[in-house]
Amino acid sequence: MSDSSATHLFLRAANGEKTDRPPVWLMRQAGRILPQYRALRQKFPDFKAFVKTPEAAAEATIQPVDELHVDAAIIFSDILVIPEAMGLDYEMIEAKGPRFPKTIENHQDIAQLRSGAEAAASLEYVYQALRITKKELHGRVPLIGFAGAPWTILAYMVEGGGSKTFSKARKMLYAEPSQAHALLQKITDTTIAYLKQQVAAGADLIQLFDSWAGELAPAHYQTFAIPYLKQICDALPEVPKTIFAKGAWFALEELGQTSCQIIGLDWSTSPQFARQKLGDQKVLQGNLDPCTLYGNADTIRQETIKMVQAFQGRHIVNLGHGVYPDTPLDGVRVFVETIRGMRYEV
Amino acid sequence: MSDSSATHLFLRAANGEKTDRPPVWLMRQAGRILPQYRALRQKFPDFKAFVKTPEAAAEATIQPVDELHVDAAIIFSDILVIPEAMGLDYEMIEAKGPRFPKTIENHQDIAQLRSGAEAAASLEYVYQALRITKKELHGRVPLIGFAGAPWTILAYMVEGGGSKTFSKARKMLYAEPSQAHALLQKITDTTIAYLKQQVAAGADLIQLFDSWAGELAPAHYQTFAIPYLKQICDALPEVPKTIFAKGAWFALEELGQTSCQIIGLDWSTSPQFARQKLGDQKVLQGNLDPCTLYGNADTIRQETIKMVQAFQGRHIVNLGHGVYPDTPLDGVRVFVETIRGMRYEV
Repeated sequence: MSDSSATHLFLRAANGEKTDRPPVWLMRQAGRILPQYRALRQKFPDFKAFVKTPEAAAEATIQPVDELHVDAAIIFSDILVIPEAMGLDYEMIEAKGPRFPKTIENHQDIAQLRSGAEAAASLEYVYQALRITKKELHGRVPLIGFAGAPWTILAYMVEGGGSKTFSKARKMLYAEPSQAHALLQKITDTTIAYLKQQVAAGADLIQLFDSWAGELAPAHYQTFAIPYLKQICDALPEVPKTIFAKGAWFALEELGQTSCQIIGLDWSTSPQFARQKLGDQKVLQGNLDPCTLYGNADTIRQETIKMVQAFQGRHIVNLGHGVYPDTPLDGVRVFVETIRGMRYEV
Repeated sequence: MSDSSATHLFLRAANGEKTDRPPVWLMRQAGRILPQYRALRQKFPDFKAFVKTPEAAAEATIQPVDELHVDAAIIFSDILVIPEAMGLDYEMIEAKGPRFPKTIENHQDIAQLRSGAEAAASLEYVYQALRITKKELHGRVPLIGFAGAPWTILAYMVEGGGSKTFSKARKMLYAEPSQAHALLQKITDTTIAYLKQQVAAGADLIQLFDSWAGELAPAHYQTFAIPYLKQICDALPEVPKTIFAKGAWFALEELGQTSCQIIGLDWSTSPQFARQKLGDQKVLQGNLDPCTLYGNADTIRQETIKMVQAFQGRHIVNLGHGVYPDTPLDGVRVFVETIRGMRYEV
């Protein structure tokens, strides 16, 4: 099922060119929604062993392309490989999420972390997964590489896991801002080296996930997030970049001033609001509420079409968050097929 | 320390009158930040026994007035007394949060719930706590009553506890909207009866907490939240009402069309943005990032003053969320004292 027009579709849309229809992919499309993924996952004792096996990661990456006919593949991996590469090991606890046995508490902890190219060198298994995927895709669709945004990675390293309030990580920004900046810079240096290697290994586009952006006060997002996002985007001129800063509706103007081409929107942010803040230059990605896919086929079709009409072009279709693991596969299919069957009115 | 001018200050500000300085209180001020509270809490085997003992609830309510000199008291209770009154029992698990052994899954579950005055009659312990508090306050400061907003209560009743995504509760809105409306109406009827009794028992103002507002897509907030908030506000003409819909920046215009007098803001929403959406009629409450209080005294003072200046009047000072339990008491004191020492420039 080679489909070179679709390959081009995604990258043309990413570059802001006019297309017949918007391209479509889903955050977390390589994951538990697919029976093939669940079967593959069972071959590994834990999630991390899976992530660290390039052949398996490549297989998981390609599964949704075969099964759902999405217009892009995203490498199967985890944003927490960066703290690990810096020397902060984590465990992935089934049905609970990540946990760091040791967390970052002071300047000494930060000084001991590896960073930059030295840290990124330990992530060869990701680059190898990208190379295998690229080869096995045979150019059918472009390949997206990714990393966590520095603030989100700091939040995990300081909290030691997920959190309802992220008050420990946010406390560092108020009580020890110089520590926070030192840590953010080390994460940024590592992320840049990591993403350069991803591009060298075949990533056609890079997405930065700032999952906890919405927890920061607007002034803090300007101080502790935007400058590091800018550094990363500026360091990767060779590919289009997407920033998905969940909940950061208040920082759209500042995000619009970075050198990324694409801004991802969560489902609380209307495309009209985003356009008003961002202007016409950026391409927007998103933003159907993932829960829509629990509805019946008519509901999914209606809501999907309504969303595309609201964006009025310069749009890459996605959900407003990662697809939830218990989403019915049929719902996902209706979503993707609705987009694939659409044509923009001329 | 009778201070009848302060009593008037809070209610005058709530009614939109000019005051010399903004009043100040903190969400969760009756709680673990106070050593007196922690001592009192130890007398009870569990949190629910504490909530259900009117004398103890009254004592916890008054502690921050004595200790911090805040301008209002808020009755010590929990938003989950409503599901319990409707027949859905919950447990409060230490350091984890609430858990409902049984959850709402279908129309039959909803049909079996008690509602309205019948359900609210079982909450006599709250009304008694309000009467005791009112008497013991001797008019020093006004007394705030509260309830959860219907969508937030539905979310707990369907999820069975907190959640990272509230996907189960939101799924009901897409997949079974008539179930959702039936449940929301029963919650609303119960909440109205409950709040009328709170006012009869002495509450001077009512606050509705919509803690999970920010999880809903904007169209769903209009359909599944706003109509029920309107019913509640309209049913309580005798007191000022506050709606604190955390994360619902996208619904400010609709919130502005309810009959509440005061809109609470979280720390991601600037007063300028809120004024632009709400106009000049509403009083705004909030919105310092609770993490600010982890900073040193100078930081707290500066950020507090900066916030008050940004609001430019018609403002009740609070944090943008409940005060975090591990906040240093000295930080809370600096916050309150900074406000008490301020005077608006004429």
